[in-house]
Order: sequence, then structure tokens, then C-alpha cells
Amino acid sequence: MSLIFLAINGGLSAVGAVICYQLILTYIPIFIARKMYGNDQCKVSNAPVPEPMGVICAAVYLIVMFMFIPFPFLEWKGQSEFPYEKLLALLSGLISISTAILLGFADDMLDLKWRHKLLFPTLSSLPLLMVYYVSGNSTTVIVPTIVRHLVQPIVLLPVTINISFIYYIFMGMVIVFCTNAINILAGINGLESGQSLVISASVCLFNFVQIFRFSAENSTGFWHHTISLYFLLPFTACTAILFYFNKYPSRVFVGDTFCYWSGMTLAVVSILGHFSKTLMLFFVPQIINFLYSIPQLFHLVPCPRHRLPKYDPKTDTVSMSIAEFKKTDLKRLGALFIAVCKSIGMLHVKEVEKDGEIYLQINNLTIINLVLKFAGPLHEKTLNDVLMSIQILCSLLAFFIRFYLASLFYDVVE
Amino acid sequence: MSLIFLAINGGLSAVGAVICYQLILTYIPIFIARKMYGNDQCKVSNAPVPEPMGVICAAVYLIVMFMFIPFPFLEWKGQSEFPYEKLLALLSGLISISTAILLGFADDMLDLKWRHKLLFPTLSSLPLLMVYYVSGNSTTVIVPTIVRHLVQPIVLLPVTINISFIYYIFMGMVIVFCTNAINILAGINGLESGQSLVISASVCLFNFVQIFRFSAENSTGFWHHTISLYFLLPFTACTAILFYFNKYPSRVFVGDTFCYWSGMTLAVVSILGHFSKTLMLFFVPQIINFLYSIPQLFHLVPCPRHRLPKYDPKTDTVSMSIAEFKKTDLKRLGALFIAVCKSIGMLHVKEVEKDGEIYLQINNLTIINLVLKFAGPLHEKTLNDVLMSIQILCSLLAFFIRFYLASLFYDVVE
Repeated sequence: MSLIFLAINGGLSAVGAVICYQLILTYIPIFIARKMYGNDQCKVSNAPVPEPMGVICAAVYLIVMFMFIPFPFLEWKGQSEFPYEKLLALLSGLISISTAILLGFADDMLDLKWRHKLLFPTLSSLPLLMVYYVSGNSTTVIVPTIVRHLVQPIVLLPVTINISFIYYIFMGMVIVFCTNAINILAGINGLESGQSLVISASVCLFNFVQIFRFSAENSTGFWHHTISLYFLLPFTACTAILFYFNKYPSRVFVGDTFCYWSGMTLAVVSILGHFSKTLMLFFVPQIINFLYSIPQLFHLVPCPRHRLPKYDPKTDTVSMSIAEFKKTDLKRLGALFIAVCKSIGMLHVKEVEKDGEIYLQINNLTIINLVLKFAGPLHEKTLNDVLMSIQILCSLLAFFIRFYLASLFYDVVE
Repeated sequence: MSLIFLAINGGLSAVGAVICYQLILTYIPIFIARKMYGNDQCKVSNAPVPEPMGVICAAVYLIVMFMFIPFPFLEWKGQSEFPYEKLLALLSGLISISTAILLGFADDMLDLKWRHKLLFPTLSSLPLLMVYYVSGNSTTVIVPTIVRHLVQPIVLLPVTINISFIYYIFMGMVIVFCTNAINILAGINGLESGQSLVISASVCLFNFVQIFRFSAENSTGFWHHTISLYFLLPFTACTAILFYFNKYPSRVFVGDTFCYWSGMTLAVVSILGHFSKTLMLFFVPQIINFLYSIPQLFHLVPCPRHRLPKYDPKTDTVSMSIAEFKKTDLKRLGALFIAVCKSIGMLHVKEVEKDGEIYLQINNLTIINLVLKFAGPLHEKTLNDVLMSIQILCSLLAFFIRFYLASLFYDVVE
């Protein structure tokens, strides 16, 4: 029965994709007329590109979700006890997603402050975590077999440990991380929509695999991965269309609206689907990018306004962009970071002397610039292809870890 | 116990109001810098006024709601059976409200098409109506005693009739009407925020009266009016601050964002509180304005781009604005409307001859222009005071009808 509703969801997603396609074409001139555009800084023309087009796709996504929700509800109506938890799960997820879209759109229009951008998703995910709590969901983690064996002489560990409220803090952090992770790995044509597409398609695949493993339709595991797909299939469909317009050469920019929407949707499905730890495996490039960015994000190292790669109109390529600052301005932690990264070859560092003072030049701290440090100047499309390949490789690695390695480390794998 | 949570809700609302005040001051220059402003057409200076400031108050409102929701939940946790319906009611209401805010903000930025503006709130209220349905809520209406007595010789009517799905259609229409009603009675300083403030304060008072009548805390009636206040107190607080900045002379404009947010919030509380018919009594000026506007909204009579009153810089007053069109362009229904309204003195009509053709001049069809037809040119502040007085009088009338007249017509009054 649930498979029929998945098919209906898939059908609505396809209709949503068609509507997205037509609405984007309709709204491109409207965005330009309303002066809602960004300038593509990696093109000779520096032409205006409509932004944030993510809001159109997000609106279509919400409409698809609103139209879909009554369907599974028709199934539940027949049951002796109405499954309130399931409806609560759907609605609390929708609240988090719709407020993330609102936040993103407000950020695109108003350039919100960082503290507001962190506060809002944290609060808007409270209903989701509350629903997780009242549904009596598990906060236990499985202890790896090897750890149990290692500490056995000292203490006898159980197979699972209930980490209780720490688990809620972890889920809250997943939400805040995901909401911002796509947004800080951005800036070249097709990157934001491309990485989201790869992750969401991978998570869809993961859900389908799990559904076939939990073949008993009434098991909770089956439901967890079904609800995850209810949210993800329309998202993947709308994102695919957005990617079509956003890939090199971009006809539209997705905006912060898309980044928040995308991150929040992926976080929500991982929590409702009980695979937030697995989701982190699919976010490995974003995690590395975040860790690598920390010195600039927290101003241990001076951070310029933009960290986009530098465009060279003569060769039509982009190369790593450079942050330059006085060596004396460097904080101690920043100096340590630079020394470590330089020694392992993960950072371009150059000292230059100007007016008797020593300046340091380092590449801006994103994995985009890191790729360019190793590969040298690349065409923008090639660069995005490389980054997409990394993302896909990480997805393959995630499947390997989740389904093969995990069975080595854990007795029980859900 | 519920009264304690109402007190907490009130406290959070007060904090929200303070935050609104400070954030509006912070964002006024940001809006101007981002070119998000309208021009005040009823002032000599024609100065830029930040718009849509409603989005800032709406964001604060959502934050207050997110922070409040865990509190009643703490109470429920102790109960043997968790009241899922109550949490569902809160969450489905929040979904409708947050998507209405998103729609309004998108409309402010993009000038959406009418069909999208009608479709979106209809769909976004589906979860709310579904929750109403699964909570087994009543769709019965009470038959007036007089009707029962009149038809008694023919058929014996029951005291209540279950009108089933017609009730859902009615609630859907309440939502779509309210979402747009504030928006079409707008255009002079303080009007949008002022009328919303009067209505929401009146509905708060109505809820408090009902709570004291249903003194048994566990009755459903008690809960209906409590949840209504949970949504309304923060709304009233944020709107009061917005009115302070929006009243003559406006330092901010509220935008469509506010109008949709306001209308949807009032519709949602009336449905969750089971008093959607009573709510319509508080919306009498908006209903009259809508009915009076129909000929222009549906283009039975030519409709100019703006229907604002006309500003006269010499006297610093506004007077009714005029729509002028060829008499031959008039459709039959439009001509009928004009003839009827003219005969009962509800329309200014003048025939003028230009270049051998007869032109008709009528006042634009809003109650703002209707007031100016009777009162003559007024200062903008006076005009808004008159409209606010009408709104307050209608609220008093609503209380009279609801608590005095209804007891004459119905045996049972909830």
C-alpha cells in the first residue's frame, strides 16, 4: 500500500518538475525587471543572472507536498487507530522546511546577520525534535563491537547505549550544519544545485535499498524510509530542473533560498528517517569544506568579502583566489593552522615584501580553491565537474562504509 | 494550569514586542540601502518608506511561537495519554501561517499573479483542515429556533444539522477570504496594521470571555479558546509595535507580507477555536469592502492600477479618487451595479462629455473612498481615525450579536 503512495508521490514530483520548468521560464524576465539578479563574476560579459530562483522551485515543492499529504492520510483513515505520530512527523518536517525557505529568501533580500541565521533554524527545528521525542523514538546508539571488546577487561559495555539528550543536541547540530553547509560550498555555476542533487539522489537510493531490506510493510524501519522519500522525491525532481538552468553557463542563480531549503530538507529526512549519522557520510565534502573554512569563518585568518575563484578572461579559466594580509596581523592559532596545512601540502602560502613589510598570500579556504591549487587553472565547467565527481565518489564511499564496513564494526546494523 | 501557560505566552509576547521594536529600528536603514521601499503618495515629500516591514515582525512572531510550543507540551507530558490532536492543531496552524508569510513576502518582491495568490493559501490550509477532520471535530450547525418553529408544520427540524463537507468548504473560503481581505482594504497610513490590531484585540477579548464562561479547564471549549489565544497574543503584541511605526505619518509600510500573515493568523485561530462564523462578524467592514469592490475586482467596471484616495498637497487632505471610462465600455452588469448604487446614494457618479463622447466618472470602489464621498476631503490621519472607529463599532456590534441576539435566535449557544 505504501508503495502505491510512493508512486503517487513520484507522479506528483514529475508534475512538479514540469511546473518548475515552466515557472522558471516565466519568472526569469520578472526577476530581471524587479532587479532581482546577481552578476556572474566568472564571465566576460558580467551579465545579470536572475537570483534567487530557488524560491520558485521551493514554492512548487511546498505545493506538491500540500497536495500529497492527504493521500497517505486516506490510507490511515481506515485503520482502527489513527497514526497521529505519522501525521505529526510530516507536519513538523514541513514547518522546518517552510521556515528555512522563508529564512533563505529573507537572507537573499536583506543580507541577514550571522546570529539570526543560526538562531532561526535552531528554533524552527524545535517542533521536529519535540515530535521525535513524543513519538518515543530511540536515542540509543550502537556500540562498535571492537570498542566493546577493547574495554571488556575494564568494564562490560552493553550492545547499545542510550545517550538521551546528547542525541537531541546532535540532531540540532545536524540541522544547523546542513542548513549552512551547502551555502558555504558555493560560488561557481551549478555547484549548489549539483551537490544537492547528488546528495539527495544518493539518499533516495539509500532509502530504496533500506525499504527493500525492511520488506515487512508495517515495521517502523519501513515507514522511516518511506516518509524520507515522501519529502525527498519532490525535492530531487525540483532540484534537477533547477540544476538544468543553473549548470554552466548559468541562466539562473539559486540563491541562499535554495541552500537553506536544500540543507534543511536533507536534515529533516535524515531525522525522520533515523539515519542522521549516515547522512553525515554523504556530506563528507561539505564537512571537509567546513573544517577547512573554519580559520576564515572564525577570523583566525583574515577573510575577504568573497572567496570565489579568480576569473581570467584571456584564457576563460578560473584559478584559486588569494587572501593577502600583513604577517604581523596573523593570530597565533591562525599561524599554527597555516604552518600545519603548509607542511602537509594543503595550502598555497607565499611571502612577499611590500614597503618594507612582510605580507602573506594564502589561497582562500574552500575546497574549490584547494582543487585549483592542485589542478591549476581550470575552465569553470571542468572545475564543477571535478567537484561533482568528488561528491559522487564520496557517495559511493558512503554506501561502502554504511553497508560493508559497518557490518564489520557492529553486531547489529539496522 | 492552562492559565499559567497563557501567562507564559503573554510574557513571551511582551518580549517579542520589545524585540520587534528594536529590530524595526535596526532594519529601517537596511531596507532603504537594499532599495526595499515604497513611496508615500499622500505626502508632499513623496519620501521612500521601508517596505515590507511586516516580514520582520512575522519572523519575530514565528520565533515566539517556536519558543512557546514546548511549554504546553511539558504539561501534556505528565498525562497518561499524550494529546496528539492538540500538538497537531498547533503545528498545522503554524504551517498555514508560515507559508502565508512566505507567500506575502514573495508577493512583495515579485508581484505574483492572482491565481497563484489564491491557489497557495488554499493548498497550505489543507493540513489544517485535515487535522480538523482527524480530530473528529464537529461540522454541525445549530438551527435557529425561529426557523425550527416556522418550518415545524411542514417538517420537524433537529436542533443541530451536520452539514459535513459543506462546512469544510466554508472554512476553506474563510481562509482564502481572510488572507486577502486585509490586503484589499489598504493604502493609507496605519490602515492595514490598525484594522488587524482592532480585530485581533477584539478576538482576544472574545476568547477571554469564553474562557471564563467555560470555567471547566478540561472542556474542549476551554481548549479551543486557549489555543486561539496562544496564536493571537504574540500576534497582537507584534502588530501593536508595527502599528506604532505604521500610523500617520508612516515610518514603515507593512507590505503584503503583513496582510497575508494577519489574515491567515485570524482565520487559523477561528478554525482551531471553532468560531469561524463569529470571526466573520468582526470582519464586517472587510466583507462590505469586498462586496463593494467586486465590480472593480472582477472587471465589471474598469479598474485603475491604484485605488488610493487622491492627495491634495495644498490643503494636505485626501479626497475620493475617481475612475473614468467611456460609457460605451461599460458592461451590462456594471451598468446595473452603478444604477443601483447611485439610486441608494452609495456611489458618486458624474457624466462628462469629451470629444463628443460621454465619459462616466465614479469613485473607486473601496469603503475608504465611500467614507470620503460622504465626509468630503479629510486629513489622512482623520480618515484613518474614522475607519478605525467604524472597525471598533463593528466589533462592539459583533459582541452584541454574538452574546445577546444569538441567545434570542438559538436555544443552544456555545
